[in-house]
Amino acid sequence: MALIVQKFGGTSVAGPERIRNAAMRVKSELDKGNQVAVVLSAMSGVTDELVGHARELSSLKTPEALAEYDTVVASGEQVTVGLLALALQEMGIKSRSFLSWQVKIKTDETHGKARIEEIDAHIIEESLARGEVPVIPGFQGVTAEGRVTTLGRGGSDTSGVALAAALKADRCDIYTDVEGVYTTDPRIVTKARKLNKIAYEEMLEMASLGAKVLQTRSVEMAMKYKVRVQVLSSFTDAPGTLLVDEEEVMERRLITGIAYTKTDARITLAGVADRPGIAASVFGPLADAEINVDMIVQNVSADGTTDITFTVAKTDLARAEDCLKKAQAELKYKKMITDPNVAKVSVVGVGLKSHAGLAQKMFQTLAEKNINILVISTSEIKISVLIAEEYMELAIRSLHTAYGLEG
Amino acid sequence: MALIVQKFGGTSVAGPERIRNAAMRVKSELDKGNQVAVVLSAMSGVTDELVGHARELSSLKTPEALAEYDTVVASGEQVTVGLLALALQEMGIKSRSFLSWQVKIKTDETHGKARIEEIDAHIIEESLARGEVPVIPGFQGVTAEGRVTTLGRGGSDTSGVALAAALKADRCDIYTDVEGVYTTDPRIVTKARKLNKIAYEEMLEMASLGAKVLQTRSVEMAMKYKVRVQVLSSFTDAPGTLLVDEEEVMERRLITGIAYTKTDARITLAGVADRPGIAASVFGPLADAEINVDMIVQNVSADGTTDITFTVAKTDLARAEDCLKKAQAELKYKKMITDPNVAKVSVVGVGLKSHAGLAQKMFQTLAEKNINILVISTSEIKISVLIAEEYMELAIRSLHTAYGLEG
Repeated sequence: MALIVQKFGGTSVAGPERIRNAAMRVKSELDKGNQVAVVLSAMSGVTDELVGHARELSSLKTPEALAEYDTVVASGEQVTVGLLALALQEMGIKSRSFLSWQVKIKTDETHGKARIEEIDAHIIEESLARGEVPVIPGFQGVTAEGRVTTLGRGGSDTSGVALAAALKADRCDIYTDVEGVYTTDPRIVTKARKLNKIAYEEMLEMASLGAKVLQTRSVEMAMKYKVRVQVLSSFTDAPGTLLVDEEEVMERRLITGIAYTKTDARITLAGVADRPGIAASVFGPLADAEINVDMIVQNVSADGTTDITFTVAKTDLARAEDCLKKAQAELKYKKMITDPNVAKVSVVGVGLKSHAGLAQKMFQTLAEKNINILVISTSEIKISVLIAEEYMELAIRSLHTAYGLEG
Repeated sequence: MALIVQKFGGTSVAGPERIRNAAMRVKSELDKGNQVAVVLSAMSGVTDELVGHARELSSLKTPEALAEYDTVVASGEQVTVGLLALALQEMGIKSRSFLSWQVKIKTDETHGKARIEEIDAHIIEESLARGEVPVIPGFQGVTAEGRVTTLGRGGSDTSGVALAAALKADRCDIYTDVEGVYTTDPRIVTKARKLNKIAYEEMLEMASLGAKVLQTRSVEMAMKYKVRVQVLSSFTDAPGTLLVDEEEVMERRLITGIAYTKTDARITLAGVADRPGIAASVFGPLADAEINVDMIVQNVSADGTTDITFTVAKTDLARAEDCLKKAQAELKYKKMITDPNVAKVSVVGVGLKSHAGLAQKMFQTLAEKNINILVISTSEIKISVLIAEEYMELAIRSLHTAYGLEG
């Protein structure tokens, strides 16, 4: 008898009919002789609506406001957990919902993006021992003081993995509206292949580079606690993708997939004085304004000045420009060039650790298509390049073929 | 400095704009130097939608199902309390929401229609002492074991009054979409007059006889704890109606108002054996089927048989007929006559206690209009008659004039 945590996303519980469908998924796992605990998102659209109401009434700047924001937006999961318990009971299955303060799911006090500190598995274990299916709201918790917190968008994945870790569950099944993790976005490359297994590290890179299947933090947590996570669709019966340790990925593939994002904009400061501390002078004011900077390149030049190029979120571009204009007197750059029409394309795979030629293949492939690389950044298991957005799809397709990722 | 509990109904918090309007009401009370605690309903329509979802998934027959039902439908107020706290904070007013398990509002375990047993006023008093406006969800509570309960439809009024009682507040203002309690329904009698004051007992009769301004239980609670309740509109600045002790009603009026309901149906069992225990035989099976019976008349007749007439809710009529058909063998009635097209019209006023002629005036007025009275029932301060539904409006208008209730 295995213990499975099933997590259903917003589209999988989007109304009574879908909730009944989710209940059928629970039943079929029980029919195999397994125990099941469930974690749910709110109905799709509900959290967005609640966020909209809160934003209409408040600028949400103070901790007090964020605490109320959390109280408001956490309500959507209270609805789905009760409804799923009802659906299960109606099918003759013992079930009850546990709200986050009933469990309890203890988090820190960072309202709006709290981190789970502890789950009192005891209460859920007792429920399982009584032969019940416990149903728990994702995306939220309570502080030590007893106020409601939320984990940030997509936080339900993290709730599911955290519960699986706390219960030492045999698997955490994350039901969503895609069939698993693909070598790249199937909307761009029709021959994209669903992966049977993927290593935690690879998934982490894929997730943080734009593959929206799982929230990055949930992957980090799965990796940390060695939770076997399966991503699968609640609308088909196809097997999904299993997140496992690197050693367990049976197919000895070197490159796993191609990820992309279109959410960044490029900023180049040309002719900056090339002196010690210049990077700190550029990025200090941006950090103060809470603008995240992603890819950074700085070239050394002969004449004592340098060009610094980096990316920020498109939504932060205007504020970043303001910031840097104000710092012009100190930075003394000759010109600021900004470009929102860029995309980041990334090749991810554990093979990059050991096979030098794999990076070269990326540059070569893009060169053959006459795609200019604006910025390059690398980590142990990924290479990312910034290119003009209009070449993004071509780049992804070419790389997908070049690395032999087709099915 | 007075302490005021303000309770806003569903239409008064139906969206961000209305919530901001409610916040303005809080502010103007604070500007008078008063302290304010707030109790809220869910946005209008939300609870109905949640109830609909729950009914779609479950027949809601078991205690376990009703516990989940409560968890689901109690979520609507979590949204409004957080949003109002945000709106108040944005206006520079210190405020925070307290969910029912944070307060806590202890109820019994009758899920779906729980009764408040205790409110830990302490936590709210501390909040007030900090200079905050505490905002509390109406309609709900928690059991000793820590499960969410709801108080039944309209239960937010009861929450408001209960909080006012627990805090020993100077007044409980119930904001709704009408300007107060009227001598009768202004949609039927355009000259209906708003009452400045009404005695608890009178309001109780008016409420249970169909005046939908306040939930009956909230009036009972106000009467029990001597809470001064004011009913008023959140959409105008007109003063409302104050519920007070009988002695405090300054105008020495005898009749307060005319109430009505169209929700009952009449059943007559003709030719029932007139023997001891016959009433028990008729109403026992109905009670077993949880069908409430309201007005009852039994006439003695000469031939050893009797006719029994009574009313049940229209929605229970089909079930009641079934019930009585099954009991035919035992009851041996000659004929069952049912009529859903009836209305109950009631005259309410403390004057009925002492002035015998007031009842006679009702019968006379209806006789003059040739309106046949099917059933009569009385209490200390009200007389109700059952008449054909088609005469209801005529009856109400005639009685309103006859008792001199016009403005």
